[in-house]
Amino acid sequence: MIKTSKLLAPLGAAASALLFSSAIYATSHDPAAIQASALKDSLAYEITEGLTTEVGPRQAGTEAEARARDWSVKKLKSLGFQNVRNEPFMMPTWVRGEETAEVTSPFPQKFHVTALGNSASTGAKGIEAEVVHFASLAAMKAVPDGSLAGKIAFVTHNMHRAQDGSGYGAFGPIRWVGPAIASQKGALAYVIKSIGTDYHRNPHAGNTNFPDGVKPIATGALSLPDADNLERMVKLARNTNTPVKMKLVLTPQNIGNQESGNIIAEVTGRDPSKGMILVACHLDSWDLATGAFDDAAGCGIVTAAAKQIMDHGKPLRTIRILWAGAEEVGLWGGKAYAKAHAGDKHAIAMESDFGADNIWRVEFNLPDEAKAVREQIAQALLPLGIGASGPPATGGADVRDIIASNNLAVIDLQQDGTRYFDLHHTPDDTLDKIDPKQMRQNVAAWSTVLSIIANSTADFTKPEKE
Amino acid sequence: MIKTSKLLAPLGAAASALLFSSAIYATSHDPAAIQASALKDSLAYEITEGLTTEVGPRQAGTEAEARARDWSVKKLKSLGFQNVRNEPFMMPTWVRGEETAEVTSPFPQKFHVTALGNSASTGAKGIEAEVVHFASLAAMKAVPDGSLAGKIAFVTHNMHRAQDGSGYGAFGPIRWVGPAIASQKGALAYVIKSIGTDYHRNPHAGNTNFPDGVKPIATGALSLPDADNLERMVKLARNTNTPVKMKLVLTPQNIGNQESGNIIAEVTGRDPSKGMILVACHLDSWDLATGAFDDAAGCGIVTAAAKQIMDHGKPLRTIRILWAGAEEVGLWGGKAYAKAHAGDKHAIAMESDFGADNIWRVEFNLPDEAKAVREQIAQALLPLGIGASGPPATGGADVRDIIASNNLAVIDLQQDGTRYFDLHHTPDDTLDKIDPKQMRQNVAAWSTVLSIIANSTADFTKPEKE
Repeated sequence: MIKTSKLLAPLGAAASALLFSSAIYATSHDPAAIQASALKDSLAYEITEGLTTEVGPRQAGTEAEARARDWSVKKLKSLGFQNVRNEPFMMPTWVRGEETAEVTSPFPQKFHVTALGNSASTGAKGIEAEVVHFASLAAMKAVPDGSLAGKIAFVTHNMHRAQDGSGYGAFGPIRWVGPAIASQKGALAYVIKSIGTDYHRNPHAGNTNFPDGVKPIATGALSLPDADNLERMVKLARNTNTPVKMKLVLTPQNIGNQESGNIIAEVTGRDPSKGMILVACHLDSWDLATGAFDDAAGCGIVTAAAKQIMDHGKPLRTIRILWAGAEEVGLWGGKAYAKAHAGDKHAIAMESDFGADNIWRVEFNLPDEAKAVREQIAQALLPLGIGASGPPATGGADVRDIIASNNLAVIDLQQDGTRYFDLHHTPDDTLDKIDPKQMRQNVAAWSTVLSIIANSTADFTKPEKE
Repeated sequence: MIKTSKLLAPLGAAASALLFSSAIYATSHDPAAIQASALKDSLAYEITEGLTTEVGPRQAGTEAEARARDWSVKKLKSLGFQNVRNEPFMMPTWVRGEETAEVTSPFPQKFHVTALGNSASTGAKGIEAEVVHFASLAAMKAVPDGSLAGKIAFVTHNMHRAQDGSGYGAFGPIRWVGPAIASQKGALAYVIKSIGTDYHRNPHAGNTNFPDGVKPIATGALSLPDADNLERMVKLARNTNTPVKMKLVLTPQNIGNQESGNIIAEVTGRDPSKGMILVACHLDSWDLATGAFDDAAGCGIVTAAAKQIMDHGKPLRTIRILWAGAEEVGLWGGKAYAKAHAGDKHAIAMESDFGADNIWRVEFNLPDEAKAVREQIAQALLPLGIGASGPPATGGADVRDIIASNNLAVIDLQQDGTRYFDLHHTPDDTLDKIDPKQMRQNVAAWSTVLSIIANSTADFTKPEKE
């Protein structure tokens, strides 16, 4: 309101009438009122419940993800959003096969394992070989090339829970680059202690990559209790110079290019010339669970927040909702979006893709000109217990490409990740993990931020990078 | 010490010398000193670690349980116990086959399922049928005979965590007798929401029974998140009068009579004429996990406590350790023990079979003559935070038969069961669930009680039941 009255003075009657009209919107978009309304939200949960119950797991490139797209278009249209559409794209698709792991000697026992995305197949008969344990990726990197020939390399870690999820960056390389390093050292196969913090018999799925020229090998993740057990076995067997032998059967397949797609919906703004606000999540999930935390919840949260704005009247700027496809398996949706929409005028990009627990911190990457907006947001989020601090915002995985290509401003609403890596990519990522109260806090924070930025006349254009 | 000096007066010199000799033992068996020593115990954990790492799952009647018996005899001998032996017996054995469950329409999705012990097979091709949901066993019981013909009956519950584990008694019948009732109503198959309190994708295994004359049907437990999902699907589909169809593949087999066995070890007492103290646990586990909580921990706890007594000098009474076989699948070990040892002179029976969390309560079923012992135990356990109250002790599953046949006195050291049914019979029952500190409190409580009762001259013989 202060900003509007400041603007009134230099304008004529017609413009003034227009501004009063804007002012009505601005009033109905009062951040505090929207925040209060959003704290009663049930839509975010409803979307999460629908996707997890009526669709279930939604692996990119499969018929399940296609069913999810159909469900999503229908749902977003029924909610009254504009320009709801599916923007299909093609992406290479890898699918899981049979997967078993068992120690055959000296302590026969079956383990819970899952293949990492892009793993090679062991063939139906599997492979049986000695396990060589490394307590870190660095330890495996340090052994001479060829020294792992005929062996199953096994890397563990001691990742702790962290509110900001920083353990994933620290230990994720065991999954992301470990398999290729093991292959280069000559390993027959590679298994890891799942990159996670829970102690359930759940392996954590996730992609890995073999760069050109590196031979893909079979590579799997053991559940954390199983990995600890294997580590104990290796230590015990070492005392008697006995090799620990494991049989691994992983029969995944590459099934070539398949269709995925981005689902888009909009709350069209009053002024199409103003850059729009892009709010993203991803629709696909890993195949082992219904993907409630990762990332049906994110789609629920950003959509419920956009709906709050829509229900309070047309905002100044268009809010575009992106439910990206094929995030888990290589960020294909984000890449496709950036390519297809590089020419669209965006102002700010945001994403929700870290569960549904309380937002505890807001981060910004805004131009200096938008300092007042930043301050307004920081103040408006205080009642929700959210502090403004920390590193500059970088955006989620599905908006990273458009942020980079179009040099967009970013706001990150950081969710509490303390239990995120208990669930991440495991069979346990199911609806019951959603705490409706914390989810509503998310919707309230998002609605608050959208009510401010979607109605802001500030220039969010960032200076070109040098 | 008070009791000893009271006894001194009427005795002559020789008896007095004997009593001083006893007193030396009694001194070295000072309950407070033994309690302090036991609080530093590492043997209970060591046994649990060994069984779960070096043996793993130990289903009764399988080669895995036989490996466990070999391991146990070796371990108990190496610890210095006397009369270590395996007492084999035969019991009917049922083994798991393939097991999958998936909703085929209207919301295709795969679930995590496990067959209940004694389930019939669906055959390799499985069965596909409409799911009929009941929110309680009573609701299913109420429908007319024949009304479930061609259907899969599905019973759910809302079991809460309870420190005393009482939810198991309340909701266990869904597993124990539900399958037979469903069969009698004509159901093609029967699935339940696992009898548990966790929300992981773990089905809880466990036995069921089909009485003579009741046709066994295929019967499985869904993980709790999956059961909730199925319940939501049934509700959603009801709105459009659409049947929810599920495909179930369960191919377990009865493989006839197989060998199991009870492992016995003793701390022989100074006076074989005094009734002995029987301390039990069970060695077998379900096949889905390494059975850390259920019941390697129990074996660790009772054995570590007996070892404390042995290490402090020969007790008055013999302590007999029973690691029973085949508990999970029908209490065969307890039955075999009662049959083989009905003629042995027992004084008191105790069992540890409820995990390894803190003991919070002691219960008694002692003759009135042993009131002073009861009081002594109650006082001695106070430093460990254990109260004496609650219903009369009934003993664990493996000592119930010998208690009944020989009318034995019983002491129950009740463990905190708050998280027991999160883990019970699931793949998650692994070593990491053991809290060493709480386990040591268990060993200390057991050692304290054993130091008192194994050295007590009280008459624990209970009057014959009328």
